[in-house]
Amino acid sequence: MNDVGCHSPLVRKFQALGPWTDSELLALGSFGSRRRRLGAHQAIFHERDASDEAYLVQSGWTCVYKLLPDGGRQVISFPLPGDIVGISGLFLDGAQFSFESLTPVELSPISTATLLNGAMASSNVARAVRWSVARDSAILVEHLVNVGRRSALMRTAHFILELAHRLRLIGAERAGEFACPVNQYWMADALGLTAIHLNRVLRELREAHLVTLRAGHVSIHDYEGLKDLAVFDGDYLSPPKRVGWP
Amino acid sequence: MNDVGCHSPLVRKFQALGPWTDSELLALGSFGSRRRRLGAHQAIFHERDASDEAYLVQSGWTCVYKLLPDGGRQVISFPLPGDIVGISGLFLDGAQFSFESLTPVELSPISTATLLNGAMASSNVARAVRWSVARDSAILVEHLVNVGRRSALMRTAHFILELAHRLRLIGAERAGEFACPVNQYWMADALGLTAIHLNRVLRELREAHLVTLRAGHVSIHDYEGLKDLAVFDGDYLSPPKRVGWP
Repeated sequence: MNDVGCHSPLVRKFQALGPWTDSELLALGSFGSRRRRLGAHQAIFHERDASDEAYLVQSGWTCVYKLLPDGGRQVISFPLPGDIVGISGLFLDGAQFSFESLTPVELSPISTATLLNGAMASSNVARAVRWSVARDSAILVEHLVNVGRRSALMRTAHFILELAHRLRLIGAERAGEFACPVNQYWMADALGLTAIHLNRVLRELREAHLVTLRAGHVSIHDYEGLKDLAVFDGDYLSPPKRVGWP
Repeated sequence: MNDVGCHSPLVRKFQALGPWTDSELLALGSFGSRRRRLGAHQAIFHERDASDEAYLVQSGWTCVYKLLPDGGRQVISFPLPGDIVGISGLFLDGAQFSFESLTPVELSPISTATLLNGAMASSNVARAVRWSVARDSAILVEHLVNVGRRSALMRTAHFILELAHRLRLIGAERAGEFACPVNQYWMADALGLTAIHLNRVLRELREAHLVTLRAGHVSIHDYEGLKDLAVFDGDYLSPPKRVGWP
């Protein structure tokens, strides 16, 4: 793997979809050719903004959310390094949500033309992008199930395990330990809970010796126990393994 | 518009993305070349099924849902004629949800190859498919916001208005009147409510002279009032209007 590959969370995320030729890595590299640095809690785009650019997260944590007229907020997702944000907005009249940085971040804007040309130039790039979009949709489905039908305890456990799996794929989780700079207000707004309720749930998970979230760090003490509680199966997060995958 | 077009809900849905040439209509027509009829409440695919076919709904109402280990059910969406179900599952190891008919339906299986070849053959077909996928994602985002942060009254109003807009696009709604063969159990499982709670909400909406749902038929009495209550803006459901849309 060349220089482009080693330093790119996108290539790390897509690694299992290879083998990748040098020219394919170059096409993937084009997605990251432009860079923009932003501080924490900076708006990247707002709901309804029309844009011809999506964003590849290169480093840092970000958040996608929708504000409600009553001041409420629903967090849709926490895009991580290697995730591409705003693809669906390219093909609608505007973005369906707002996008901001939670920590200092580095982002690569990807124009619609770059995205479509990259996919046109390499069927491996095309299938990686299709997988990425399909996976984001699967994550959204699980999020809806979480909020609609799982108990506060189950949904919080499910959320933490999903983060762990996503971070492992990009090398940012190790033996159940990972940094998680999402404060409890944002997390509550993802889970459809109040911050007070979430705080109680986190205490319950800690006292059951399953997982501790403290000072921006998560320690999973009992992975199997947490998995059983959440009835979690992370297959929807992993690169496809089946034969004949298009 | 030729014969293919007149009878196809897919072409009706995509009409505003035209003008369509005869050869493009033929490519779209290929998505509907195979037909399968099913009775009501028949399984089409189950969660985790690996498949190389998506399904175009030609007629009837269908439902996409996920079952929980405790017997709960979260309805993800109610695909209508012109909707394509299961595209994301083509690019993952398997389906993220189960898919069944709610009424007698006619479906067209679309193989991955047909879908990708159709998009390759015509940039107009490709952009129509991209829009369809992006719109499904936008619908999913609104659904998450509904369940996570909107009151039971607002989310039910929002759901009914969304159905009205989607049905209007395919010519199945007229002046606020439409058939809606979704019973209150399925609807409650979409909205993250109990059937009893939903029943109370529907009575409240009826008594406020906003909307009546009775015997499988919806009558919107006060469209503006219902829209104000839901803070509904249906732009995410309509074909893009912006210039330079890819």
